[in-house]
Amino acid sequence: MRELKSMDGNNAAAHVSYAFTEVAAIYPITPSSPMADYVDQWSAQGRKNIFGTTVKVAELESEAGAAGAVHGSLTAGALTTTYTASQGLLLMIPNMYKIAAEQLPSVFHVSARTVSTHALNIFGDHSDVMACRQTGFAMMAETNVQEVMDLSAVAHLAAIKGGLPVLNFFDGFRTSHEVQKIQVWDYEDLAEMCDFDAIKAFRDHALNPEHPAMRGSHENGDIFFQHREACNSHYDAFPAVVEEYMDKVNAKLGTDYKLFNYYGAPDADRVIVAMGSICDVIEEVIDYLNAHGEKVGLVKPRLYRPWVSARFCEAIPASCTKLAVLDRTKEPGSAGEPLFQDVITALAQEGRSIGTVTRGRYGLGSKDTPPSSVFAIYAELAKDEPKREFTIGIVDDVTNLSLPEDENCPNTAAEGTIECKFWGLGGDGTVGANKNSIKIIGDHTDKYVQAYFQYDSKKTGGVTVSHLRFGDNPIKSPYYINKADFVACHNPSYITKGFKIVQDVKPGGVFLINCQWNLEELEHHLDAASKRYIAENNIQLYTINAIDLAIKVGMGKRTNTILQSAFFTLANVMPAEDAVKYMKDAAEHSYAKKGMDVVEKNWNAIDAGATAFVKVDVPASWASAEAAPVDVALEGPAATVAVVKKILNPIGKMDGYSLPVSAFAEPHRQDGRLQPARLRLRRPGRRPVPPGRLRL
Amino acid sequence: MRELKSMDGNNAAAHVSYAFTEVAAIYPITPSSPMADYVDQWSAQGRKNIFGTTVKVAELESEAGAAGAVHGSLTAGALTTTYTASQGLLLMIPNMYKIAAEQLPSVFHVSARTVSTHALNIFGDHSDVMACRQTGFAMMAETNVQEVMDLSAVAHLAAIKGGLPVLNFFDGFRTSHEVQKIQVWDYEDLAEMCDFDAIKAFRDHALNPEHPAMRGSHENGDIFFQHREACNSHYDAFPAVVEEYMDKVNAKLGTDYKLFNYYGAPDADRVIVAMGSICDVIEEVIDYLNAHGEKVGLVKPRLYRPWVSARFCEAIPASCTKLAVLDRTKEPGSAGEPLFQDVITALAQEGRSIGTVTRGRYGLGSKDTPPSSVFAIYAELAKDEPKREFTIGIVDDVTNLSLPEDENCPNTAAEGTIECKFWGLGGDGTVGANKNSIKIIGDHTDKYVQAYFQYDSKKTGGVTVSHLRFGDNPIKSPYYINKADFVACHNPSYITKGFKIVQDVKPGGVFLINCQWNLEELEHHLDAASKRYIAENNIQLYTINAIDLAIKVGMGKRTNTILQSAFFTLANVMPAEDAVKYMKDAAEHSYAKKGMDVVEKNWNAIDAGATAFVKVDVPASWASAEAAPVDVALEGPAATVAVVKKILNPIGKMDGYSLPVSAFAEPHRQDGRLQPARLRLRRPGRRPVPPGRLRL
Repeated sequence: MRELKSMDGNNAAAHVSYAFTEVAAIYPITPSSPMADYVDQWSAQGRKNIFGTTVKVAELESEAGAAGAVHGSLTAGALTTTYTASQGLLLMIPNMYKIAAEQLPSVFHVSARTVSTHALNIFGDHSDVMACRQTGFAMMAETNVQEVMDLSAVAHLAAIKGGLPVLNFFDGFRTSHEVQKIQVWDYEDLAEMCDFDAIKAFRDHALNPEHPAMRGSHENGDIFFQHREACNSHYDAFPAVVEEYMDKVNAKLGTDYKLFNYYGAPDADRVIVAMGSICDVIEEVIDYLNAHGEKVGLVKPRLYRPWVSARFCEAIPASCTKLAVLDRTKEPGSAGEPLFQDVITALAQEGRSIGTVTRGRYGLGSKDTPPSSVFAIYAELAKDEPKREFTIGIVDDVTNLSLPEDENCPNTAAEGTIECKFWGLGGDGTVGANKNSIKIIGDHTDKYVQAYFQYDSKKTGGVTVSHLRFGDNPIKSPYYINKADFVACHNPSYITKGFKIVQDVKPGGVFLINCQWNLEELEHHLDAASKRYIAENNIQLYTINAIDLAIKVGMGKRTNTILQSAFFTLANVMPAEDAVKYMKDAAEHSYAKKGMDVVEKNWNAIDAGATAFVKVDVPASWASAEAAPVDVALEGPAATVAVVKKILNPIGKMDGYSLPVSAFAEPHRQDGRLQPARLRLRRPGRRPVPPGRLRL
Repeated sequence: MRELKSMDGNNAAAHVSYAFTEVAAIYPITPSSPMADYVDQWSAQGRKNIFGTTVKVAELESEAGAAGAVHGSLTAGALTTTYTASQGLLLMIPNMYKIAAEQLPSVFHVSARTVSTHALNIFGDHSDVMACRQTGFAMMAETNVQEVMDLSAVAHLAAIKGGLPVLNFFDGFRTSHEVQKIQVWDYEDLAEMCDFDAIKAFRDHALNPEHPAMRGSHENGDIFFQHREACNSHYDAFPAVVEEYMDKVNAKLGTDYKLFNYYGAPDADRVIVAMGSICDVIEEVIDYLNAHGEKVGLVKPRLYRPWVSARFCEAIPASCTKLAVLDRTKEPGSAGEPLFQDVITALAQEGRSIGTVTRGRYGLGSKDTPPSSVFAIYAELAKDEPKREFTIGIVDDVTNLSLPEDENCPNTAAEGTIECKFWGLGGDGTVGANKNSIKIIGDHTDKYVQAYFQYDSKKTGGVTVSHLRFGDNPIKSPYYINKADFVACHNPSYITKGFKIVQDVKPGGVFLINCQWNLEELEHHLDAASKRYIAENNIQLYTINAIDLAIKVGMGKRTNTILQSAFFTLANVMPAEDAVKYMKDAAEHSYAKKGMDVVEKNWNAIDAGATAFVKVDVPASWASAEAAPVDVALEGPAATVAVVKKILNPIGKMDGYSLPVSAFAEPHRQDGRLQPARLRLRRPGRRPVPPGRLRL
């Protein structure tokens, strides 16, 4: 078995791409930047690719420049790679047509991200890669971090042997930034699979003054069309090359990668077609449903371009009567989103009749897709007349496309998975400490781990929510935790603001609040709904005053180490003394170069945090806590007040997820506009907020 | 009836767009530049739009900048327009997503042009506009110059009332540069149809410091998806707005524009679906076939986005059993090109069953699509098992997708159309003189006219071929003339190079050669095939020595006026004295400001040209002329010699059209590469060509 390491999808793609890359032409854009950053760092460290050379990294002035440099570098005979997303990818489109038509073996690794529309959004969906489906690039899709590791190799190997560039994509943030404990390729294995003859041929045909050839020429109407059709056989041959390398990888790893993989009941009546991280959610739900007597399945296109209709149809069980095709993009005004149209076309081309084929949109801009969404799809498909077009993960009360979802659907996470959730403030060290924790658990136990860090695009100063899972079984679950064994609130202001936090703790689970409050103060700040939830669900409530403690042990404002240590004790992941030891080792590793006094302060914080929490005896009265009447008067133009009440307040309370489509459907809001906040807010017993400022 | 004028599609689009435009943000790219140029000129002349103001024209640093300026200008409340094509359009894609999602009423007029792939190509196809189909723009397609005039108004009016940007496209060169005598909108009619309330609402909601609103914001995963779905009803409503304006236009003009127009037999069994100039070719063939007992038809999508599946299906006769969908783009690796996929999707969505639906590609990079191509499609559809995927206009002897075409298919041009063809050299004045001729015929007779100018992308110094048609019936025929009543070769070197020129003259037609040769010399230079064609087809052969004559009358190298005058006499378009008068008037108009001596020289040239041609008595021996054995030895590397013989020689002889796909199918040629010309050429009786130079 290959070496196991904890890493995210960007790291996995970077690891593989470095092996096959001679030149990386880059320009940073979220969420792809870490890929280029890894490659740049490794290059600076002198790491060798499979050719025994160090990658030459060139940062250009924009993604347009990066794409041009990729094209030029390939033309000069260097295996060249780039990393991008979203608008960055759009700027590469003109060069992509050239690179594809010149049959140059590049790989573009894309952490797929939303293209800006009514608003900017830095998070994940497939609108960027789908804007490139017409360029002639091959396209491959991966579901999770392990697949990024495994199949990125196929992308590079097939590009080299098959003579086409590959756009290799996986979900921005959900896969690019999710940490998983995965098996990592050894470069010797990669070199062993590589077709060095094809590389030699590629280099032999590079631009060379010793044997010049004309390329990038101009052609008129007389010959252009004939010449353009000359590539048909080349494209027809490419899928077999991809299959060949999937087979090689399967032989090495014992996997079963195919152009289109099927998962589920061999005699399924209802099947979903989807690409990207949602596939792992769907598989969890399939396991649950099929274990409970239903017959459902999933087809996962891995080679999206060239699209092989025959292979797609082969992957669907003969028993299937209903198909739902999921697109993680929206193309307003189209006859249907791209994967849906490809599926319809494939069925028509192959003469395959499936009673009902429906289309769904999901996950735009990193909208979370939990199992409840997938249950909803299969439930809808079970109806006699399922909706022909639908959305999941939202409430569409305007065009009524959304499917009803049951928040209390079964928990489909792997048996025995421990789920922990941490609310922090961007820059407070919570995310860093959690990355450290997951590394300790991953490296020093046999447990599988998963970590996902949800944050506002402004990052520093915004709310961060860390989602950590670990357990004895492999973890899929590419969605937010909302049934946690352990939840920590690292910032007391989230309690006073009334964020819904404790509601994610499972009955009997642990809730830890970092605050300077005694019980009386805690009672004052906790809202009635939280109190009732704690009392009714037997939540084990703890407080910890890491704020004062950090000052005391010389850590100043840095509470994260103390809170990390408290987590290890309370969550009982491993023997307490082991956890303390590993945390201390990590602190020494991180801070030794800053001096032993810094290391010792961290050690003191670890020791202090391990025991500094206080169990709160939950008063019986909390079970019947009622909200005190709050009379908040918003003063200002009616339209502005309406926007604040309807939209800005819920968003400010981290409850924007609950907003339905109707909140945005007014004519002058659906185009992305919002009224400005020009109003005054008065709350009884507080001093008036000065004009121009708002407490939301 | 509206005023009739002779103009090309760019002029028509510019005329309409100027009426509705307050700001034009532009950057020039072939073949769209003249649109922006017209608007810029009219603006400089102080012409008023329908709001009584002059268009403000801003030329940006690139198309990316132009698109950004369009976005900004719209956001500030100005009706803003741009004009572009090909890579220029690709650079606008990122802003297009924003403009669409913000529901801003812009029109992008696009003279659709090839996107560069294995080679640059400045000519027409739909690969550029199809790369934008996912942006959320509405899209409208026009077939010919008159439609550009009529429907561009619908694009602007619907954008304003419906609140969406429209990408309004027509075929680059074929429509953008084809001169037709068309009816021209009066701005009062346009103003009458315009929804000024909608414009007021648009302006009221522009960025304004008096009533600020937030826009272009950032949204996280909590609300982005819901907000994105809020536009659904807006898109659903747009097609009805387009229909409303089509109806208004129909009421004014007596036209019958619909979202999807049907042409042909109401009980057709075979139907083509297509957009752009090919529709007029198809209609000619439909008229012929249906007049000869067949039942065929055509569906023309005019509103391509938002795509209305129900309306599309309604347009297909119930009797239709076979459908061929034509795309003027190629998306290698796709399940099918976009219009084909939309048709398949529409049929599936509407539950409409058509026995056979095939897909065809045509016209890439301005490959000409003559009636023979369309006959071939209907013939193929008549087969029991028509090809599921095909190409027309080329010979694909590699993947065998092309349909067999009969060059001697019926002439489908309108009854009584006179067809004339002129071979010139870029910069020799042939094109300019022909534009002048067509204007004279268009303005001073009741005849319909059409002029199309075919040239190499290097323009000056390249071969130009002018295609002029005129007649008493409306002219469709958007394809090259290859059965001409009159053909002139303005450059004697084309004869010595052996271009196939006279072969396009109809039996009994006129062939005029500009040369300094006597009969003996002419016999020497004309190749045997041309001689036989002349003799066997009773071609009326004339020579004219415009070269010496031009010097004599003081025109120096300018032979074009003499040759134009000769054309008017020989083609007998109008009474000779009238033609001379109009030509002289035009010369005075053009050159008066350069002084009367220049005008008089032109007048002399006109007088001289009218009679300076010489009828050649074709020797009977020409009927049996045989080619003298020509032993051309090409010396050089075998691969290079092969390229010259197989590819470069036919292209050099203006016969590249005859090259099949196999000429480009070798692995190192299908990617756009060609061997360099490093060889020596020896021809008996001529001095050796120095190395590095070639006579092709």
